[in-house]
Parts: sequence; structure tokens; C-alpha cells
Amino acid sequence: MKLDSAGLQVLLPQECMALLATAPIGRIVFTDRALPAVQPVNFVLDGTDIVIRATVGSKLAAATRRAVVAFEADDFDPQGRTGWSVTVVGHARAVDDPQEAARLAGLPLTPWAPGERDHFIVIAAEQVSGRRITGS
Amino acid sequence: MKLDSAGLQVLLPQECMALLATAPIGRIVFTDRALPAVQPVNFVLDGTDIVIRATVGSKLAAATRRAVVAFEADDFDPQGRTGWSVTVVGHARAVDDPQEAARLAGLPLTPWAPGERDHFIVIAAEQVSGRRITGS
Repeated sequence: MKLDSAGLQVLLPQECMALLATAPIGRIVFTDRALPAVQPVNFVLDGTDIVIRATVGSKLAAATRRAVVAFEADDFDPQGRTGWSVTVVGHARAVDDPQEAARLAGLPLTPWAPGERDHFIVIAAEQVSGRRITGS
Repeated sequence: MKLDSAGLQVLLPQECMALLATAPIGRIVFTDRALPAVQPVNFVLDGTDIVIRATVGSKLAAATRRAVVAFEADDFDPQGRTGWSVTVVGHARAVDDPQEAARLAGLPLTPWAPGERDHFIVIAAEQVSGRRITGS
């Protein structure tokens, strides 16, 4: 078991992806008008790609177009002070190809928020890191 | 009840701060070597300031020194597809004044992670925004 400098257990990339697959919600981290921005989204994994749905013309769609973003999911137990977090960093891209969009529309990804969200954003998991805190 | 362009309920700043006070964990969003970075931390509110503890010399301590950061907390119910999120954007500063550090050490903020974490970071809540999703 590898520990980082803060004493947290370092997760292997395959552990990170397995944990990500269990999370209903993640947080996409991007830059909005030169300021750090973060927005919770529901998502689905497509292999190691993270797929989210956004509204065409939304701030999220505009800000993540051809940008490097981070995507974070976690699950903590405040009583036991245990839990894990996983962060993926990679290029986000808008899905412009109708065939790819049709395929992604078949994934089990129903937006929580109301409104038309037929714009797909795909984040490539280029850097994957994760930590587990096991309580003291 | 004000809705945003995505159909989510817009929370007032005072609602945002009241919800933040209920969250055991938040996520600090910053830039690390020109890449977006995000790290979960436990925190406490000191008025409207967000106070976290870090290890001296840690990546988090270095990256947030005199930087504008975002801080996000949320709570979602995946079954009901309801929940809220709050994001604060503001300047982070390291607490260098021993008197201020002594006062902050008296706040109910015990780090979850092991190790010495006697370095305080304070984030001023300069922009506060929040959304609630009430389910369909």
C-alpha cells in the first residue's frame, strides 16, 4: 500500500476507474472567464472516457470546448472519516459527429436537470489519480 | 423562486452560506502547474471565510498562496435526483500571523488526514453562487 506525503493511500489507475464507475455525480473543473469554475454533473463512463450531457450554448459547453479540464468524484463518510476521491485530467471535446452522438445517446445517462441536453461532452482520462483515507 | 437557464433553482447568497455550514467536506479548485486541480478537504466557516488546514510545503499550500480559487460543496440524493451545490470564488491566503493562527486553531476543525496540518488557508467568499435541483 503506497502512501502519499499527506499519509493518504494512493490508488492505482484501475482502482480509480472502478470507483468512478460507482459514482452517480462528479464535478467538472474548468476555467470560466479566467476564473476557476466547478459544476456538478451526472455522467457515465464509456471505456475510460467520461461522458456528460450539456445544453447547447451553455457556459459549460462553451468553456469545455477543446479545453483541458479536471473531473472529480468522491465518496466520504463523515462519521468514520473515511472515503476516497478520484481526479481525472484530460482534454474535453464536444461531440460533433452525428453517428457518435447517436451511439452516446444509447448510454445509460439521463440528465437530472430539466431541459434539452443533447450536447455531449467527452473527457479523455489522460491523467488519473486517486486517494483513499482510511481513518485513524 | 428564480430559475437559471438550465432550469435549476438559483439560491440566494445567505442560503448558500447556510448550506455550506452543513457540509462536512468541500472541494478546493485551483491551478497546479497550469492544469486544473481539485482536492477534497474538510473545512469550517469563520463568518463567511472558509478555513482549511494544510501541511506546510504541500502542493495545496503552495498552489493556493495568493491565488484566486473556487471552493465547492454539494449534497445530492441519487435516488430522488435532488440536491444542491454551492460554489464560492475568492482569494486564498496563507495565515502567517501567529495570533490569527492561534485563533483559528480554536475553531472546530480537526483534519481527517494524518500528519501535522498546522498551516491555515483562508478563502474569502467574494463570489457566492448556488443551485438546487428539485427533481422532476
